[in-house]
Amino acid sequence: MPDTLPADSVGLVTPQKHAFDAPLELDCGRTLPAYELVYETYGKLNADASNAVLICHALSGDHHAAGYHSMEDRKPGWWETCIGPGKPIDTDRFFVVSSNNLGGCRGSTGPMSINPDKGKPYGPDFPIVTVRDWVRSQARLADVLGIQQWAAIVGGSLGGMQAMQWTIDFPERLRHALLIAAAPKLSAQNIGFNEVARQAIMSDPDFHEGHYYEHKVIPRRGLMLARMLGHITYLSDESMRAKFGRELREGKLKFGFDVDFQVESYLRYQGQVFVEKFDANTYLLMTKALDYFDPAADYNDSLSHALASAQAEFLVLSFTSDWRFAPARSREIVKALLDNRKKVTYAEIEAHHGHDAFLMPIKDYLDVFHSYMARVATRLHDNTAS
Amino acid sequence: MPDTLPADSVGLVTPQKHAFDAPLELDCGRTLPAYELVYETYGKLNADASNAVLICHALSGDHHAAGYHSMEDRKPGWWETCIGPGKPIDTDRFFVVSSNNLGGCRGSTGPMSINPDKGKPYGPDFPIVTVRDWVRSQARLADVLGIQQWAAIVGGSLGGMQAMQWTIDFPERLRHALLIAAAPKLSAQNIGFNEVARQAIMSDPDFHEGHYYEHKVIPRRGLMLARMLGHITYLSDESMRAKFGRELREGKLKFGFDVDFQVESYLRYQGQVFVEKFDANTYLLMTKALDYFDPAADYNDSLSHALASAQAEFLVLSFTSDWRFAPARSREIVKALLDNRKKVTYAEIEAHHGHDAFLMPIKDYLDVFHSYMARVATRLHDNTAS
Repeated sequence: MPDTLPADSVGLVTPQKHAFDAPLELDCGRTLPAYELVYETYGKLNADASNAVLICHALSGDHHAAGYHSMEDRKPGWWETCIGPGKPIDTDRFFVVSSNNLGGCRGSTGPMSINPDKGKPYGPDFPIVTVRDWVRSQARLADVLGIQQWAAIVGGSLGGMQAMQWTIDFPERLRHALLIAAAPKLSAQNIGFNEVARQAIMSDPDFHEGHYYEHKVIPRRGLMLARMLGHITYLSDESMRAKFGRELREGKLKFGFDVDFQVESYLRYQGQVFVEKFDANTYLLMTKALDYFDPAADYNDSLSHALASAQAEFLVLSFTSDWRFAPARSREIVKALLDNRKKVTYAEIEAHHGHDAFLMPIKDYLDVFHSYMARVATRLHDNTAS
Repeated sequence: MPDTLPADSVGLVTPQKHAFDAPLELDCGRTLPAYELVYETYGKLNADASNAVLICHALSGDHHAAGYHSMEDRKPGWWETCIGPGKPIDTDRFFVVSSNNLGGCRGSTGPMSINPDKGKPYGPDFPIVTVRDWVRSQARLADVLGIQQWAAIVGGSLGGMQAMQWTIDFPERLRHALLIAAAPKLSAQNIGFNEVARQAIMSDPDFHEGHYYEHKVIPRRGLMLARMLGHITYLSDESMRAKFGRELREGKLKFGFDVDFQVESYLRYQGQVFVEKFDANTYLLMTKALDYFDPAADYNDSLSHALASAQAEFLVLSFTSDWRFAPARSREIVKALLDNRKKVTYAEIEAHHGHDAFLMPIKDYLDVFHSYMARVATRLHDNTAS
């Protein structure tokens, strides 16, 4: 906990919630009769509502992207590095909106919410949601907030996929799309890792086919395994080598199955912490949204065709050591945009942090991000907020 | 099942077993009072016992490296591609020995064997064994077979690590060491994946702290997860893309948590098959042997010093798409050998199959392997067997 909040933080923030009464038709064919989205905003919307920036979160993220909920918070929001006064997403210039995705476990309607049809939590009956469904729900949030067109929509990883989907589904509703460490679709390897994570959760006897809330348990072992595995794919071989090497926790091999190496201890700890704060049914949903994302599928598998009607300008960023969504995957997006003569800026950032680099304070990354957003700011219709 | 066995196969083979009565001191500090090794041999030992080749197996391998146990066998031994008449390890010229490692589950003494002290299976009480322990036990098998010096010791992956350890511990007992898709030690990422696999097994409620035999169950879920995860690391992103892409099993997304993509179906199947034929306690032991392997550790972390006393000539092979033990890891070995002015041949084989490439019929690979072994054959003291 900081004694005083840092000057470059948005400071104390309070989540807000909006209840949507109009039914939402989902890609799976089902309809959510009503739902709530929890969100946070940072900065001030300007007079003509032209300075709004939407943040889309990744697999285990949420609406709390920046600032602190109380002076007792030990950590700020997950993208504090990039959002705040004077930061790449400068809250002195932009009005920033960050919502928890539908199906989430931090306040938006999801598996832990009460299913009005049954009077108990949805659990496994919560519908499979897609990136397209999220974008549709976010567009309704924009309507509520009086934002006709976003200055920019920004996201890393799965968040970048949402930003890309916006340019396809609502091309006229954003001027810039920032796709960071993203991919146009998952590879078989990506899906394979997600499937192992899902099997870990679903084969845990405490999963009870998703009805574990009623049994007052959580599939702790399975969710822990899923997180440990996920974590390895977020880091690079190189960053793990730099961080842990083969360092032994107690200076010698123990010739047993307890922790020998620091990396084992770290992964177990990450798994244990995650279990306390994330819901297993939501984890399953998020991995399926990732697996299903494939905007080219509706266009004869042509990403170029899928992006043909996009009107936004693009910034695409990748990180050299990211093997989850490697630079080659970002270049597929850039290629498809260039095929269409879209305006796209691409940078491949030298970084050893792996996929997690998009969350890290890497100078080259923040510099490019900052410059691009500064250009977005100079193009606002109305600069009264800046 | 082939109606007749292929002409380039060693044909029908029968495993043999040897009981060792002399106690074996292990790296962990414990002593095995007695133990058995099961092994197979192919080809004929020549008069001066100079044409013997030892095959060392990898994590889930065993002694059955080539040929068939019966005419009903659907599949031959695991390295049928490389062992047989006219193949790289030519059984018309060499006498080939392949044993199941100590701690294994296919006939050599391991967790499923009866612990003489307790009159029931060792289970989790079986000592942690190391690559060095295996090499020591293999040296005793060589004594029994009357092999003072191997013409070559050959292994892929963990098998290559055993071949390397032989050159350090018994430098005068082999003339050639073939290290294929190996590494001088595991990286933090490698250890991380092994740790997730172990946690999957050990957190399975059917594991019973390793005493599952007594409960008449097996930790099926955990072992299945371990295998699914392992399998992803044996393949390359590229080979998975080529093999599965994003192909759907039933032609459309199902919006549920059953199998959507072919890759999911494949991994589940691989996991299910493995559970029926491999022991979870052995899996744990094998992963620890991998994690612990680090011959440089006793030499101030200098691999060059570790290999300084080696007398063998070396063939080191790696595969371009192998990300488990990438070519860079093989080059570390080559570098250490060159530091010592050892004779080493190195080839980096272009292959998209990932780590599993060492088991595959890849022309460039088989050609290099074949040529090298042909040279080994021309150098036999006595060529009467050829």
